[in-house]
Amino acid sequence: MTDHLAPVDAERGGVVFAPLARSVRALIDATIRTEVDDDTVERARALVEQATELLAAVQMPGSFGVRPTVDGTTAAWGNAAIGLRNPIAPPLVIRYEADGVVRTDVALGAAYEGPPNQVHGGVCALILDHVLGATAHRPDRPAFTGTLTIRYLRPTYLGQLHAEARIEREDASKTFAVGHISDADGITVEAHGVFIRPKTGGVTSA
Amino acid sequence: MTDHLAPVDAERGGVVFAPLARSVRALIDATIRTEVDDDTVERARALVEQATELLAAVQMPGSFGVRPTVDGTTAAWGNAAIGLRNPIAPPLVIRYEADGVVRTDVALGAAYEGPPNQVHGGVCALILDHVLGATAHRPDRPAFTGTLTIRYLRPTYLGQLHAEARIEREDASKTFAVGHISDADGITVEAHGVFIRPKTGGVTSA
Repeated sequence: MTDHLAPVDAERGGVVFAPLARSVRALIDATIRTEVDDDTVERARALVEQATELLAAVQMPGSFGVRPTVDGTTAAWGNAAIGLRNPIAPPLVIRYEADGVVRTDVALGAAYEGPPNQVHGGVCALILDHVLGATAHRPDRPAFTGTLTIRYLRPTYLGQLHAEARIEREDASKTFAVGHISDADGITVEAHGVFIRPKTGGVTSA
Repeated sequence: MTDHLAPVDAERGGVVFAPLARSVRALIDATIRTEVDDDTVERARALVEQATELLAAVQMPGSFGVRPTVDGTTAAWGNAAIGLRNPIAPPLVIRYEADGVVRTDVALGAAYEGPPNQVHGGVCALILDHVLGATAHRPDRPAFTGTLTIRYLRPTYLGQLHAEARIEREDASKTFAVGHISDADGITVEAHGVFIRPKTGGVTSA
């Protein structure tokens, strides 16, 4: 699907696009929390429209996809969980650690709210899907979520959170993973997932 | 938690804040998809920073929460799934229909991507958590997700999608709901959820 795409430059991603996405994340937070008067909202909206017009003057035809980089890795910069160019993504920074556990630490603000002051249950699910799925990825064998079971033990409050996952067992085409989200007081949400690697490979990301 | 908050004006939400959030959603899409040169990205980023500065000059201390409106309903404008002020939210527009089924139709673009051209599995989970949870809500008895089980039948492609859920059975404190996401060719993802209504009520939203 994205095989025809030219490789992207990872350095340019970090220097040019990541700062733009960070600025848009701050704008998202301000859009939710502002209490300025109507005229000021309208002035801000006009600036946003100008920024969009500049950026949309030249753009790729569809979504970002997952592209090769010039240094031989892949870039999932548009990904809703980890995309450095996607302002919707916190973004998660996934660590594949020596003990075989996949870990991430993330601060979630107003944009991820469900019940008052709490992380939306579906945002917890998004994080767990991605972190559990990361245990199943192989460079040339993408993994897709088969089933995901999430158990909410207590409220997950907005703020600093940790998520981690590990492989419970694995066969030729499936990875069974377990994981959780925790705050300073312990685990708030647990998850089990089955991830499937189709027989044909390709450049992708769950 | 948000009981001290002054009621908000639903009309102002629709006229002032919803257009701002819509403009920011277009900016998010452009941020992911732009192919302009570095100088133009930087000019756009400067405009975004100006907009944020205008909006953040006066803002509420924390997240939006769920607030009463002047006409006696509630506003979950910051909600990550349905919030009209939250640019991360598509936003879902939830319909409570006469047959007891909760339905929503939504178009998902580049910002919701996981595998190339597909909706992120975790975004499907977010939508299903919200739609299934909506079956369990009562005006004064908020429901929280207890468990959520999601089965991915085939890829969900970016574009126009439908989601719906209904109550399978219910007791005094729990609602057992089932639902799915579908595209023009049928169901792509199925879900079961157990939602819990704590004994003490309050103004909230899953």
